Amino acid sequence: MLNRVKVALCQMKVTASKEENLDKAVEMIARARQKDAEIVVLPEMFCCPLVHKYYQKYAERVPGGETVKILSEAARREGVFLIGGSLPERVDEGAIYNTSLIFDNQGEQIGKCRKLHLFDVKLKNGFQFNESATLSAGDQITVIDTPWGKIGVLICYDLRFPELARLMALSGVKMIFAPAAFTKNTGQSHWETLFKSRALDNLVFMLGCSPARDPEAAYVVYGHSIAVNPWGKVIGELEEEEGMLIVDVQLDELDEARRSLPVWQHRREDVYYLSNLKALENLTVFSSQSVKMD
Amino acid sequence: MLNRVKVALCQMKVTASKEENLDKAVEMIARARQKDAEIVVLPEMFCCPLVHKYYQKYAERVPGGETVKILSEAARREGVFLIGGSLPERVDEGAIYNTSLIFDNQGEQIGKCRKLHLFDVKLKNGFQFNESATLSAGDQITVIDTPWGKIGVLICYDLRFPELARLMALSGVKMIFAPAAFTKNTGQSHWETLFKSRALDNLVFMLGCSPARDPEAAYVVYGHSIAVNPWGKVIGELEEEEGMLIVDVQLDELDEARRSLPVWQHRREDVYYLSNLKALENLTVFSSQSVKMD
Repeated sequence: MLNRVKVALCQMKVTASKEENLDKAVEMIARARQKDAEIVVLPEMFCCPLVHKYYQKYAERVPGGETVKILSEAARREGVFLIGGSLPERVDEGAIYNTSLIFDNQGEQIGKCRKLHLFDVKLKNGFQFNESATLSAGDQITVIDTPWGKIGVLICYDLRFPELARLMALSGVKMIFAPAAFTKNTGQSHWETLFKSRALDNLVFMLGCSPARDPEAAYVVYGHSIAVNPWGKVIGELEEEEGMLIVDVQLDELDEARRSLPVWQHRREDVYYLSNLKALENLTVFSSQSVKMD
Repeated sequence: MLNRVKVALCQMKVTASKEENLDKAVEMIARARQKDAEIVVLPEMFCCPLVHKYYQKYAERVPGGETVKILSEAARREGVFLIGGSLPERVDEGAIYNTSLIFDNQGEQIGKCRKLHLFDVKLKNGFQFNESATLSAGDQITVIDTPWGKIGVLICYDLRFPELARLMALSGVKMIFAPAAFTKNTGQSHWETLFKSRALDNLVFMLGCSPARDPEAAYVVYGHSIAVNPWGKVIGELEEEEGMLIVDVQLDELDEARRSLPVWQHRREDVYYLSNLKALENLTVFSSQSVKMD
């Protein structure tokens, strides 16, 4: 098992033009590769503004859609694993999901995560969002095998539900990727705490990728793409502007943290019981042959 | 239901003399009452240094022991609810528990919490602690009814296990009290994150009470007794010296946070399942008659 990996979090500014967004994503993936990234992460809804009407307009089939093809091609061309942020996924019955697609470095889709918890909130400052008006919720937990061990993928509001990261860690995940677009206000209050605590409780790496902030947008995001190690320490964080965060993830730190704090041996499974009720999505096993890392 | 409560966290310096410790605790409870506290909290092992030999020496029966009587009497005399930190509890078969006793304002013991997770760790800096060499672990989750609604009590290392606070919140708890004695190092790295995240994930108040730091002690604690509101905001925190933190807990903030972020409606109980396998300890129901608040 490879024990270190360079991850690039692409905090790109998302515009109302799908074409511009796709061009930007492809350009940033190439730039990440030039900086030796082996896993590249895009933000939630990197190709589509966080506005209901655009979900309808830009939704695509998986597989088959334009964005799916472009992401697959970029991953293959650059030879990187790609956590493809998320996009509006259209399915037959007319439903749309907030879906993250994951590709290996040969452009094969190796995983899919449909956001489980929809963001229906009404904040004190007047901000309202009702994601379930347009979107449907997934019902599976996404754990994927990679050359660096198992990884989990969840999306934005899913972060607020500790059961999810806990179950991923129980299934052996070492890194959890979270394409996310917190609002400026909830981000200021909660973003760092959530990433630190999920990392610390589960002694895993947490990697969050947000769009860049556009103060003129209908939905103003926090930005601050972040990487936290299993000791709960922030090892990299951006501000709100467009940019790329490259972090060198030392997976040995995970073993070290677990030797210091053997919480996995100390859990009281005779007192509390946590389980997932669905099969894990996308648990594919990589043989060393199937993955050519250079 | 009363919707605000003044809580005093007594960050007392613990010495090797049990008598001195008990005197100090009684004195601080009285002082807390003078400051209008209605709930007073003592730290983990407030009557006994965090050293194995003292656990044996100072362990007492519950009920029956000297400390139990003194705490009950102080609660009654001052007319306060008392989260009695913790003490080494001796039981018939020779086992010793790390036990927190909870009293109402008439001196009745209304709850008991035996630490569930024992602190057996070996940190990178060389620090080792092996609590299970001397102590036995409890096996119940402590939820207690009070005039301010249900409260939970857990002890120190129990904080690191998100299932516990989650189950307390699922049972309707509004405040979780944590007598705790983190080490200086783990405290610096993790204390605030743990309290903030348990508060935020569960939208409850978290109140942690540590002993004061004694740099000469065998076990050097972090201090920093803390109160965090359901929005994950620190509403009071001490430094490391002896002192008392008085916080005005506005329970309406809990309802407000839950209106803003209705995570309890959004949990996906069709995808994950968390349950406690034991009956909740100490769930007594208070009628308004049984409690005389002045």
